[in-house]
Amino acid sequence: MIHDTIIQLLKEIIKDEKRILTDKVDLYSYSYDSSFGVYLPDVVVQPKETKEVAEMMKLANKYEIPVYPRGQGTSLSGGPLPVKGGIVFDLSKWDNKLIIDAEDMVAVVSPGVITADINNAAMEAGMIYPPDPSSSNVSTIGGNLAENSGGPRGLKYGVTKDYVIGLEVVTPEGEVIRTGGRTVKNVTGYDLTKLIVGSEGTLGIITEAILRLFPKPQATKTLMAVFDDIVDSGRAITNILSSGILPSKLEIMDNATINAVEAYEPLGLPIEAEALLLIELDGHPAAIEDEIIRVQQVCESSQASEVRVANTVEEANELWKARKLVSPAIVREKPTKISEDATIPRSKIPEMFKRLKEIREKYHIHLVVFGHAGDGNLHPNIIADQRDQEEMRRVEKAVEEIFEAAIELGGTLSGEHGIGTLKAPFMEMELGEIGLDMMKRIKESWDPKNVLNPGKIFPEPGQRLVLTNG
Amino acid sequence: MIHDTIIQLLKEIIKDEKRILTDKVDLYSYSYDSSFGVYLPDVVVQPKETKEVAEMMKLANKYEIPVYPRGQGTSLSGGPLPVKGGIVFDLSKWDNKLIIDAEDMVAVVSPGVITADINNAAMEAGMIYPPDPSSSNVSTIGGNLAENSGGPRGLKYGVTKDYVIGLEVVTPEGEVIRTGGRTVKNVTGYDLTKLIVGSEGTLGIITEAILRLFPKPQATKTLMAVFDDIVDSGRAITNILSSGILPSKLEIMDNATINAVEAYEPLGLPIEAEALLLIELDGHPAAIEDEIIRVQQVCESSQASEVRVANTVEEANELWKARKLVSPAIVREKPTKISEDATIPRSKIPEMFKRLKEIREKYHIHLVVFGHAGDGNLHPNIIADQRDQEEMRRVEKAVEEIFEAAIELGGTLSGEHGIGTLKAPFMEMELGEIGLDMMKRIKESWDPKNVLNPGKIFPEPGQRLVLTNG
Repeated sequence: MIHDTIIQLLKEIIKDEKRILTDKVDLYSYSYDSSFGVYLPDVVVQPKETKEVAEMMKLANKYEIPVYPRGQGTSLSGGPLPVKGGIVFDLSKWDNKLIIDAEDMVAVVSPGVITADINNAAMEAGMIYPPDPSSSNVSTIGGNLAENSGGPRGLKYGVTKDYVIGLEVVTPEGEVIRTGGRTVKNVTGYDLTKLIVGSEGTLGIITEAILRLFPKPQATKTLMAVFDDIVDSGRAITNILSSGILPSKLEIMDNATINAVEAYEPLGLPIEAEALLLIELDGHPAAIEDEIIRVQQVCESSQASEVRVANTVEEANELWKARKLVSPAIVREKPTKISEDATIPRSKIPEMFKRLKEIREKYHIHLVVFGHAGDGNLHPNIIADQRDQEEMRRVEKAVEEIFEAAIELGGTLSGEHGIGTLKAPFMEMELGEIGLDMMKRIKESWDPKNVLNPGKIFPEPGQRLVLTNG
Repeated sequence: MIHDTIIQLLKEIIKDEKRILTDKVDLYSYSYDSSFGVYLPDVVVQPKETKEVAEMMKLANKYEIPVYPRGQGTSLSGGPLPVKGGIVFDLSKWDNKLIIDAEDMVAVVSPGVITADINNAAMEAGMIYPPDPSSSNVSTIGGNLAENSGGPRGLKYGVTKDYVIGLEVVTPEGEVIRTGGRTVKNVTGYDLTKLIVGSEGTLGIITEAILRLFPKPQATKTLMAVFDDIVDSGRAITNILSSGILPSKLEIMDNATINAVEAYEPLGLPIEAEALLLIELDGHPAAIEDEIIRVQQVCESSQASEVRVANTVEEANELWKARKLVSPAIVREKPTKISEDATIPRSKIPEMFKRLKEIREKYHIHLVVFGHAGDGNLHPNIIADQRDQEEMRRVEKAVEEIFEAAIELGGTLSGEHGIGTLKAPFMEMELGEIGLDMMKRIKESWDPKNVLNPGKIFPEPGQRLVLTNG
């Protein structure tokens, strides 16, 4: 528990008392995220300037109080959970800076800006900010930066990290540093920018980011292809990419996902199909007009049983509706959704589907699979009921086996959700003892007192998977 | 000096004596790179497998002997220079692995593979490896990875780092770790891949890399635009990019560069012009056919005095010849070329040209400017004669002022050449004391005995710029 003296010292830094929350009911709002577990912080502060963050971080460091930076709490891996109490830095209120510089083609943002707002502002200036996590209408850029968020456009455009060229960061010791800058090319020393992005708030608190923008594609074109055999859909993906076409999105839905959506809202989806691909091309109108025909041909020659090309924006929206309804559709079946993001090399998609089928049958779990097939970033989602302890034990075992399968196939624990608390127990399985130790050395050299987001990424002794909120 | 015992121990690891060089004449061949300074190593080894690298690294660590990894020695900043003697690891002979995986769209390579060979192998499979440093026909991928090399295609395609998704690395303590993998998306812990790429061989020795490949663009199109006023050329660049077109290359040559080339080989270049832009578009034939017309229009409305569009591959090659002849042309004038890569935000290009002109006049130096204007990565090159000590003192001052100007304009010391020995004295100017200290903490936590590439990136006390080989 934090002593009143500390609260008093925080008040001297944040001179607006409304931005210091100590009421139990407020603290509870900051005790969870979109993953599992409930942990009450001792106090929540809402900084709105770098100086406040730096001074409070210095204070926390001096008194060795854990600090948990947080955006909108949409993390699926436990990134912002205050697992050791202490102070939550709610950065979501610090949303006053969103500058679009058309000449340098960058956006300069404060950490609390909503991600979709950046893309919207860029679009008004004829550009885009490509990273598009599903939560982009809700999540803050600060959270996206901490977790290196992905999204469907990752296949062609990469992930959050690929767009960050400069940062202002408060170190765990409360010092302010700037990394990178406004130039795309920069090899002056170690790349701290790309080290801090994706470090899940364990190495520093991002107080400003310079993001690279891209020219806005002139047009898009959407196609849906249906496959009776999921192996054929995998082959179609490879054939499309090796034909020289790089779609902006390439999403897959398996039979269980198709049926969940169709049961939720009848869209006329092919409920017998083993897989459905949704493909979007973007670029010059003449180019994608030609390419969409080639994609159609490739799908047909890869045994697609049906191919639908959208001829209008409305038709395209109609096709994408199937994908958009996946999340609401599956949570209607049971209340607890365990959303994984085990990612494998593209060539291993058919094998991964086979493994997932075996895991589903072995543990009698309700498993649906969809995701960003173009880059091997699948989302196996298990639908369960947390209150059923016996079921949850089976789910925990199934999740472990999903991780094992992904790693065995040359993939990774996490493609875009991060490690947080949830996957920390599995880190050594992927990285080995030394690989993990080299990461830990960086953490210890930057944060010797372990005050910034402690309990994340690195497993605690004996830590195991927890999928309950008890 | 290394004791004979060490040589004996090295022979027990590398069982092929031809791969251990101790003759003075051989050592001399490893004493320099393409920057400045001559430093003799004690011994050179040519490892060809991970086990050899790991065991020798362990040995060096135990006896605290400096290790200097090296590719083909094309570094412009001193990356491989054995400034403290010790052992050079010549990795250029380890070129046996170059696997193209068309399905996963990756190349798996050993460190000694020549960079251009990777792109050539990818092209045969319908793909490209985009990074294209000027040295790509000579330099090894290992050197490119250590230095995070750039090149003209950086504007659209990014730099080396953007294509590395997995590494095998021998740590300074001789342990073998794997970072990343074969998936584009990976957020499992800290991004060691992107930390090690560009760390100039100070954090680990890369023994294998997994590189992302891209579909091969179907066509290219080239245009040259001539400007009487360099400010107009800067405006043209902005106007092209904000019209939604992202060229694959966008190079600039200033008046001094144009004249040096024309004097070297008469190509009919506009010797009165202040600037010349060379622009290449790539992509779908129909798209670039339309886009090249729009680029032409934008250049014309941005006051270009002349625009030439290449209608055939031969005509395109003819236009690019001007750019390709820059280096041979300028070294003919005087023997010593100081090639800088100070990089600024794109919007600051006209201001940087103004500053460079002032510096040229202030120090009476021979300065030509060309480079990758699209991403602000200019190459101010000073042509001098090392033997003229008075001139070299002026050159050193001019170089310092170029760095200062770049940083003042929000840019960086180095866009693509690295820090090495050459720019180490200026690190604090860009990063500040704390920024530099955070980098040093990483180095110290990974290499506490400072045996791997010591004397690079981090300035030694009192270190200053050296531009002689004396």
